[in-house]
Amino acid sequence: MKLTEEKCEACQVGAPRVKPDEQEQFLKELDDWIVITETKEVRNIGDHDVSNSSEIDKLFKEYKFKNYSSALEFATKVANLAENENHHPLIALEWGKVRVWWWTHAIEGLHRNDFVCAAKTDQL
Amino acid sequence: MKLTEEKCEACQVGAPRVKPDEQEQFLKELDDWIVITETKEVRNIGDHDVSNSSEIDKLFKEYKFKNYSSALEFATKVANLAENENHHPLIALEWGKVRVWWWTHAIEGLHRNDFVCAAKTDQL
Repeated sequence: MKLTEEKCEACQVGAPRVKPDEQEQFLKELDDWIVITETKEVRNIGDHDVSNSSEIDKLFKEYKFKNYSSALEFATKVANLAENENHHPLIALEWGKVRVWWWTHAIEGLHRNDFVCAAKTDQL
Repeated sequence: MKLTEEKCEACQVGAPRVKPDEQEQFLKELDDWIVITETKEVRNIGDHDVSNSSEIDKLFKEYKFKNYSSALEFATKVANLAENENHHPLIALEWGKVRVWWWTHAIEGLHRNDFVCAAKTDQL
C-alpha cells in the first residue's frame, strides 16, 4: 500500500519508532523530505542534578512560493490535513516559504504516521 | 499616537533601526512581547576568508490556545494582518500554540513598523 493511501492511526506512548533502514525506505517514496535529528541538552548548576540530553528525529521539508498568499493558502491546507488526520506538525509561514516538520510527540521521534502525513502534504 | 493607530510605512535598506532605549519604551506599550537577539556565525576553512558574525533583533511572543482550530484561526488572522500591512512575520503554528516573530529584513533588525505590527497582533 502507498503511504498516501494510509490513514494516521491513533498513536500512544510506547508505539514503535520507525527504524533507520525503514526511514530510508520511506524517504524513497517521498519528494525532497529529509530526516533531521535535533539534540536537546539540559545542564544545571546546583545539588539536584537534572542534566540530560536527548535526541529527536523529525521529518522536514521547505516549500517555496512566489508570493505570500500562495504560501498562506498552502499552510492552511497543511493545517486542515492535520485536523483531518488528528496529527499536528509544526508549520512555519514566512513570505514566500512554508516549512513543515512532522514528528510524533508521544514517542519523541518518527512514527509511520509521520511518513504518511508527509506523503499527503506533497499531494496538497 | 498609539502604536495600534499607526500604519506600517514602506521600509527600505538604510531606514533607521529602533534604538535600545526606544525599544524599552515601545515594549511598555506591548503585552508580553520580548526582544530576542539572534546571532549568526559563518566560519570557513580555506584561503578565501568569508568568516563573519552578525546579530539581528526580533520581536517575539508565544500565544497559547486550548485546541488546534483556535490556534489556526489566530495564525490566519495574523497572516491577514501581514498582508494588510504589507509586512510579513514568521508565524509558527503547532497544536495549542502560535509563535510570532516580527522584524525587518531590509534593515536586519527592528523598525518602528515591527512594534506597530506587534501591537496590532495583540488586538486580533
